[in-house]
Amino acid sequence: MKGIILFGHGARNPEYIAPFQRIRALVAARQPGVPVEIGFLELTQPPLEASIECLVSRGVRQIKVVPIFFAPGRHVLKDLPELIGHAADRFPAVEFEVAACVGEVEAVIEAMAMHALNA
Amino acid sequence: MKGIILFGHGARNPEYIAPFQRIRALVAARQPGVPVEIGFLELTQPPLEASIECLVSRGVRQIKVVPIFFAPGRHVLKDLPELIGHAADRFPAVEFEVAACVGEVEAVIEAMAMHALNA
Repeated sequence: MKGIILFGHGARNPEYIAPFQRIRALVAARQPGVPVEIGFLELTQPPLEASIECLVSRGVRQIKVVPIFFAPGRHVLKDLPELIGHAADRFPAVEFEVAACVGEVEAVIEAMAMHALNA
Repeated sequence: MKGIILFGHGARNPEYIAPFQRIRALVAARQPGVPVEIGFLELTQPPLEASIECLVSRGVRQIKVVPIFFAPGRHVLKDLPELIGHAADRFPAVEFEVAACVGEVEAVIEAMAMHALNA
């Protein structure tokens, strides 16, 4: 079974999680059979590790991690591979894949540009 | 004259700026008469202050700052108002406005969800 994790940075403000929950709800609505979790690097719960554990315990063996980042910086290029490396050691039967940062996707760029113009 | 600043976090990786430049190019293409700059909180050049200065020196008197952030955390709720407060003191004839974070915009949420599904 395949699963998706939306990987975000995290922040102290509890309302920070809302957009992630909205993305998750849309993904779940489009593909109800694919488990989708949210996992953070820091500050916001749950941490990425916990979301991986959650999916694995539900039988997921292929996990696609989608960085909800605008661009690849240290967190995506260094922290994320390290976290996935640890998870791969812990769950050798699970296949991990990292998608492009959302901010690198043309449709996302376009939607942000339209917001900048019309906000 | 009105102007737009795309406000991002910044990162050490020099390639980090690319998505911001893509948003800027799209905005500029749609409204060639509106000056649009990129300004960062830290690490990536130019800092927000420099972009504000740049627009003001070009005669802009209304600046819309668009936070290229997924959700309002400390940087948007505390750092950005402070930076804008300093700029407003320095340029009292300039009107500042802060748009919603791009990550709170429905079309952006949808585009990110589609990427999570199809990546």
